Amino acid sequence: MSKIKIGIIGGTGYTGVELLRLLLVHPNAEVILITSRSESGRAVSDLFPSLRGFTDLAFTKPEPSSFNHCDVVFSATPNGIAMTHARELLDKGVKLIDLAADFRIKDVSVWSEWYGMVHACPELVEQAVYGLPEVNMASLKNAQLVANPGCYPTATTLGFLPLIESGLVDVSDLVADAKSGVTGAGRGASVANLYSEVNDNFKAYAVAGHRHHPEISQNLAEAAGGAVGLTFVPHLTPMLRGIHATLYANLLNLDQPIEEIHAIYEARYHNEPFVDVLPLGSHPDTRSVKTSNMCRIGLHKAGGSGKLVVLSVIDNLTKGAAGQAIQNMNIMFGLDQTVGISNPAVQP
Amino acid sequence: MSKIKIGIIGGTGYTGVELLRLLLVHPNAEVILITSRSESGRAVSDLFPSLRGFTDLAFTKPEPSSFNHCDVVFSATPNGIAMTHARELLDKGVKLIDLAADFRIKDVSVWSEWYGMVHACPELVEQAVYGLPEVNMASLKNAQLVANPGCYPTATTLGFLPLIESGLVDVSDLVADAKSGVTGAGRGASVANLYSEVNDNFKAYAVAGHRHHPEISQNLAEAAGGAVGLTFVPHLTPMLRGIHATLYANLLNLDQPIEEIHAIYEARYHNEPFVDVLPLGSHPDTRSVKTSNMCRIGLHKAGGSGKLVVLSVIDNLTKGAAGQAIQNMNIMFGLDQTVGISNPAVQP
Amino acid sequence: MSKIKIGIIGGTGYTGVELLRLLLVHPNAEVILITSRSESGRAVSDLFPSLRGFTDLAFTKPEPSSFNHCDVVFSATPNGIAMTHARELLDKGVKLIDLAADFRIKDVSVWSEWYGMVHACPELVEQAVYGLPEVNMASLKNAQLVANPGCYPTATTLGFLPLIESGLVDVSDLVADAKSGVTGAGRGASVANLYSEVNDNFKAYAVAGHRHHPEISQNLAEAAGGAVGLTFVPHLTPMLRGIHATLYANLLNLDQPIEEIHAIYEARYHNEPFVDVLPLGSHPDTRSVKTSNMCRIGLHKAGGSGKLVVLSVIDNLTKGAAGQAIQNMNIMFGLDQTVGISNPAVQP
Amino acid sequence: MSKIKIGIIGGTGYTGVELLRLLLVHPNAEVILITSRSESGRAVSDLFPSLRGFTDLAFTKPEPSSFNHCDVVFSATPNGIAMTHARELLDKGVKLIDLAADFRIKDVSVWSEWYGMVHACPELVEQAVYGLPEVNMASLKNAQLVANPGCYPTATTLGFLPLIESGLVDVSDLVADAKSGVTGAGRGASVANLYSEVNDNFKAYAVAGHRHHPEISQNLAEAAGGAVGLTFVPHLTPMLRGIHATLYANLLNLDQPIEEIHAIYEARYHNEPFVDVLPLGSHPDTRSVKTSNMCRIGLHKAGGSGKLVVLSVIDNLTKGAAGQAIQNMNIMFGLDQTVGISNPAVQP
Repeated sequence: MSKIKIGIIGGTGYTGVELLRLLLVHPNAEVILITSRSESGRAVSDLFPSLRGFTDLAFTKPEPSSFNHCDVVFSATPNGIAMTHARELLDKGVKLIDLAADFRIKDVSVWSEWYGMVHACPELVEQAVYGLPEVNMASLKNAQLVANPGCYPTATTLGFLPLIESGLVDVSDLVADAKSGVTGAGRGASVANLYSEVNDNFKAYAVAGHRHHPEISQNLAEAAGGAVGLTFVPHLTPMLRGIHATLYANLLNLDQPIEEIHAIYEARYHNEPFVDVLPLGSHPDTRSVKTSNMCRIGLHKAGGSGKLVVLSVIDNLTKGAAGQAIQNMNIMFGLDQTVGISNPAVQP
Repeated sequence: MSKIKIGIIGGTGYTGVELLRLLLVHPNAEVILITSRSESGRAVSDLFPSLRGFTDLAFTKPEPSSFNHCDVVFSATPNGIAMTHARELLDKGVKLIDLAADFRIKDVSVWSEWYGMVHACPELVEQAVYGLPEVNMASLKNAQLVANPGCYPTATTLGFLPLIESGLVDVSDLVADAKSGVTGAGRGASVANLYSEVNDNFKAYAVAGHRHHPEISQNLAEAAGGAVGLTFVPHLTPMLRGIHATLYANLLNLDQPIEEIHAIYEARYHNEPFVDVLPLGSHPDTRSVKTSNMCRIGLHKAGGSGKLVVLSVIDNLTKGAAGQAIQNMNIMFGLDQTVGISNPAVQP
Repeated sequence: MSKIKIGIIGGTGYTGVELLRLLLVHPNAEVILITSRSESGRAVSDLFPSLRGFTDLAFTKPEPSSFNHCDVVFSATPNGIAMTHARELLDKGVKLIDLAADFRIKDVSVWSEWYGMVHACPELVEQAVYGLPEVNMASLKNAQLVANPGCYPTATTLGFLPLIESGLVDVSDLVADAKSGVTGAGRGASVANLYSEVNDNFKAYAVAGHRHHPEISQNLAEAAGGAVGLTFVPHLTPMLRGIHATLYANLLNLDQPIEEIHAIYEARYHNEPFVDVLPLGSHPDTRSVKTSNMCRIGLHKAGGSGKLVVLSVIDNLTKGAAGQAIQNMNIMFGLDQTVGISNPAVQP
Repeated sequence: MSKIKIGIIGGTGYTGVELLRLLLVHPNAEVILITSRSESGRAVSDLFPSLRGFTDLAFTKPEPSSFNHCDVVFSATPNGIAMTHARELLDKGVKLIDLAADFRIKDVSVWSEWYGMVHACPELVEQAVYGLPEVNMASLKNAQLVANPGCYPTATTLGFLPLIESGLVDVSDLVADAKSGVTGAGRGASVANLYSEVNDNFKAYAVAGHRHHPEISQNLAEAAGGAVGLTFVPHLTPMLRGIHATLYANLLNLDQPIEEIHAIYEARYHNEPFVDVLPLGSHPDTRSVKTSNMCRIGLHKAGGSGKLVVLSVIDNLTKGAAGQAIQNMNIMFGLDQTVGISNPAVQP
């Protein structure tokens, strides 16, 4: 098979360099183009010396014809950019994987409310496939346009999914207390994300409302076959990579043995190469998935209350962004979904 | 007033050095003795060079007569040590503040179950005053024996207290998702707390049961006037100091305005110098209390669910241990409770 | 004595908040004014919640008459600002302590070359006293205008000083390999200082030339009574506070015992409350001075070569900036130099 | 080609898990055995959950016949263990790569002095090839016993090598100021390497003498064709992985243009896939090589003195240990030296 020809829009952030780290050594991929308005003309390996020797590409300004020779384009830009390219790319037969949020929310008015923009191509939102392979494998195989999930939604959805699909818990009262490493905040210059502000410090943010709330709710509602009640509180923790979602739910049958629930999780994810249900009693730590595309899940009944507690960890840049995007690409092009993204996590 | 003569048992850990940092410049205190079996004979400032110039004390082996000249003894040892000294000290008229857990749990059988020991002086447990000044100020003034609270219990109790005392929430379903810096794990040699294990890593632990659960439950039950249902999940976050408790509760009246609840918190803590209720919408970060004795609290209704979310932060070594112990000492000796522990938090 | 009335120009950075942390509880100081163009009107404790309860001040726009009632003004602005205020303040009889570099370099043309500006008041440069009390105590007592030293120059100068004053080493070949925590880079928004850029990363910078080079050279030349040859390489290390200078020099007498050199250091700093010469064989770590105004120094003959190695550590925000500025203020106003800045370092 | 059958002695440390991370996905390698006395019987993926799904091996007790079916054994144990296995393995025709120091120092009496042991097989020391492929490629092709270099020696030797081989500098006065991440200190339980001791802290250690000094001296002397004068000061910096060596040397010809020296470095390493000479003016940071087998080098003339400054960075666990060991294995078995260790560095 000839290599998949890949274009990247906006590869100057952490998601961009993670895409490059993985794609530049992917056996079936060839990155032929990477655009950036701000870094146009600069060698990619000058901005990211870690890539010296792996690519001779320079950033280029995006032009209408830029992507004519691409089989697929990854959009790793801020929200609101991919939707301005989507129609044109699809019309040319170029597939599009958007790592931002433009195509994630099916209800366009909800999307506009949270993202503060009018949608440029609402008619494509319905066509877009939400790129969580553990849910939408079949649709992804033929997808032309993929909405790559957010990092919090990936960890939270995979953690709650078997519970909700199996009807084991009260879906009207779900709590997701999630903690993210700082790369999740992006590579833009800001005082709030300075080392001296973030290090040796821990805080919650956006308790009154976070953009990932409607995305998670949509996922869980689809699994539940109806509305769910979700409390979602994100936190910033002083580390580079990783999301740890601590999920709380009330069992409908308080006496249901945790072993049964564990067996349901194992069955649900038995064929999923990137979801690992740990033995009962395990506390997955974020470094067990660092730089890998894996999601690891631990299950507990909380001491004292018996509430069900699910611990779900991913690397926000890999399974939470670039790795999952490549997993989606693999599926869209008929490859084994694990190609190029199956290395063990880095320790430590 | 002459200075309070102070002995410290077991001052080689992080709680010990925090006690020394504060007591050695406390205007009404004089540390006359500090014991350690393992470091006996070594200058304190050799173990802790930060204290060079502040003390000429050396660690000494504890002897029966060691504390004869003390007004008060702080026990900063592992659990199970203070109870072996308590009777003798009290008989000599020496007050005792235990920074470990020996006297925190009123039900001695519960204590034995969690701490895996027979209690050496159950008759003193009842006499001991639980050293949370915001609850037990009156009793502390005459206390001879104080059980200094745990770090998680301090942050969690202060965060929930006004809600429960005012009967605003369903006390049968309280969730405390708490995150601690690594100093909370102590200064003992262990692989689990190595830099290379803990840094750039986040995890939950002891979901099935943690020793601070019965302590928190006891506090909340006392405030509620009856049993409470508590789910408590502690996490380890890669920072030195700080606890961030994210607390979830269901309002009995879902329509109750958050402004009303905020006013209740402000009224409850109006006269408390070490509890700071932030303006509505605030997200306190742990560094805003770093090295200080302050607890800061933020209040929110969570977007999407309306569940009440309380954010409560302390420094685990200060308000969560040594600072609160000194606050208790101040109260026991008729001083203003803030003496020696009122410096601003270090930033950053 | 009535309190010293203090104004602060530009207190929104890390040096500013460190000044406030120390001055707001200094027994002889009263901060009456703090200016900031960008934060004008905002409560200081809103920007820095750590100061809630310690000040009711708000930032104000600087006006010509702003400082009329001040005894002393601390300028904690970027380089080039203090020199625009200096003449006016001095004419009013207000003392000025500049924490930036405007008055540090006696050769104005050298200053202009390094700082890229024409000096606004070259005639005041000569009058300014370089605020290193361990060198200029006598002049500081009557100083109206103080140039507070840079962080690297403080650690490096104090480390080399006894060697050079005593004529023990070849001053034509001095090497200072210095490592700084990230707060030294300031609080401005920049990609380079993001947590995700700096954390788990170490690098040298400005090897071809750093602004602190002429300042250090000036200090050492003054001690040597003639020009010195200095190689200075700064590095950024992933921590918040602290400078570690590793200093290399060749003894003129290779056989001179290290004990003799150690005695010379001890004698030189015997009366200096903020310089601590450690016992031979010691490796001072930066946390032994964290948040304190202390400089700690270790001395070694390097294994294998016998080259003299001096290890000198300070906290860049305290002895390297705000603490030393307050030390200077104390001296200028006839106080004991340690007032308000003598607390032990925070551990850990 | 059939896969190389690999045994690992003592794989429970950071070097061990790094070997496994790389070898378990190496296309020509098969790990058939991994021994550990302390973890015997435990699944490897239980100790290192990051490896779940990549291996079913359990740790076993080392037995005389354990390695009979191995083509090569990696010894990732503390110093002094590999030498007890070497004779037997070689006699069986099993190649041995020792990641500890047993075979690094050619002068056995020097080795004994520094490592405090009698050498178990001095006759094999001479036979051992020092596994720095950029120096010993030819000998490595036929080596049966390889002494894998230390982390500091790798970074320092590669940084100094072209200078010394070309006779450009005064070899009697070389300074290596080196900074290491904490994984270099190993995975043993110790107070000194606790997160709470190491984080937000920087220090030098072993200034009077470090075991890597004779190893580096041996390397440089070999390049110089005679003795060198080396000052080596190691430091511990709060990060997980990485070594940054800042190297100082005096040019014999002070006027020699840096461009000439740069050209010499480029020529020296032109054919070396794992040494990257950066453009003039570059400051390589450790994260540019994190998790990769690359060494990156920057060259400068220091401002003010004209002294030559070389900046050399590696990942201590990869090029400084496990990655280089695999590079050596590749060479010993006739593979391209880059197989399995050519992925880009992880960013960030």
